[in-house]
Amino acid sequence: MTGAETIELGVLRVLTLDDQADVALHGRIIEQHFPHASTRSRCIPNHPDGIPSAEAEVDALPYVLELGTDMGAQVDALAISCALDPGVSTLDQRLDIPVVGAGASVAGSALARGRNVGTLGLEGGTPSVIRNILGDQLQATETVEGAETTNYLTTREGRAAIDEAITRLVEAGCDVVAPSCTGLTTSGVLADIQRRAGVPIIDPVVAMGAIAAAAVRPGEETTDRTSTRHEHP
Amino acid sequence: MTGAETIELGVLRVLTLDDQADVALHGRIIEQHFPHASTRSRCIPNHPDGIPSAEAEVDALPYVLELGTDMGAQVDALAISCALDPGVSTLDQRLDIPVVGAGASVAGSALARGRNVGTLGLEGGTPSVIRNILGDQLQATETVEGAETTNYLTTREGRAAIDEAITRLVEAGCDVVAPSCTGLTTSGVLADIQRRAGVPIIDPVVAMGAIAAAAVRPGEETTDRTSTRHEHP
Repeated sequence: MTGAETIELGVLRVLTLDDQADVALHGRIIEQHFPHASTRSRCIPNHPDGIPSAEAEVDALPYVLELGTDMGAQVDALAISCALDPGVSTLDQRLDIPVVGAGASVAGSALARGRNVGTLGLEGGTPSVIRNILGDQLQATETVEGAETTNYLTTREGRAAIDEAITRLVEAGCDVVAPSCTGLTTSGVLADIQRRAGVPIIDPVVAMGAIAAAAVRPGEETTDRTSTRHEHP
Repeated sequence: MTGAETIELGVLRVLTLDDQADVALHGRIIEQHFPHASTRSRCIPNHPDGIPSAEAEVDALPYVLELGTDMGAQVDALAISCALDPGVSTLDQRLDIPVVGAGASVAGSALARGRNVGTLGLEGGTPSVIRNILGDQLQATETVEGAETTNYLTTREGRAAIDEAITRLVEAGCDVVAPSCTGLTTSGVLADIQRRAGVPIIDPVVAMGAIAAAAVRPGEETTDRTSTRHEHP
């Protein structure tokens, strides 16, 4: 805890980045939305492509657990900035601070805003943590076609592909969109998409910041030092 | 919008209260958790007992819609501080700002923190908005026995009744608790319960503040001026 009016949030990136400004990008976005939050960001080593597959998740998990355990000693809450929520359950049991993931946060926040949720991904499939939370309120799933890299999302073609995907979700009856990859936050396109869309577009990183901030009250010791998401409660 | 670093949230109370400090209580709690939020609180007339029944909800709804429409013109987002979410769907379609309710917010936030949710109410039954969002992730429901008024919750008997209810929820396999009535926030007991409980206890008013704050970014025009929770999208 840093002081009466601020909270410290750890932001763990599962993408290995060399530039500390790149590592800190999601934390900066959380600070912009929640100015009382001070974020500390770190990334796992050896994963320059992030976690693009189930195999990569298995490989990355020990790094996430080690880094998360280290970061957890210094913050009021820890946020794992990946929609797969790798390591969230284990870290939440292991640490005495709240641990949240972008996947559960975007899914839960979408359910707080609409009843028929559409997911929007960059690669095939919606992460299981998001599918499990949405249940039969997962109305439709779309993928941004051609989005091999997040840079593509800011091109004219990428922008058109996103708009087409959102249109398909709305036509399928979705009244809220849950981006199922934090790469959509990284690309910086979500605010722009929101201006064009007729339904709320939840930012997974902002949602994660909101859920983490709600679990910690500024100006007092964290009271919510509990373990959650038990596999076997 | 009040300035570069703040957001304006309207907090609509469905309980008629004479003292403006009482009316503003939920807003103050949101401001304590999210210091960049400035809240404006008002209550509907003619409902000194709040909305204790379905009949009372039908009677209160026109007042909620009228007051909400009036408040919506002056804020960045509107929060209906009742776990029944009365009028939220209609106001969210009618207004050009995000409209959120305590019911959907506590349910969605609970799903972001745990996978087996227990609801804790003051009267029989869990509101349908919460049941619908939780689906088969609603693990168990408990009611605080003897809680005719929120004052009871702060007595020794009330405190024991709450602890017993939480214990039953945990024994039923719940790994997070979603209080299904904002009266539990009003009573001020949630932080104290959190210290004793082994699982996260979500504060419905704080959750509502988090969801509302995530929908508005400080320092720029609200971009999320969309209609949500359509009955027929």
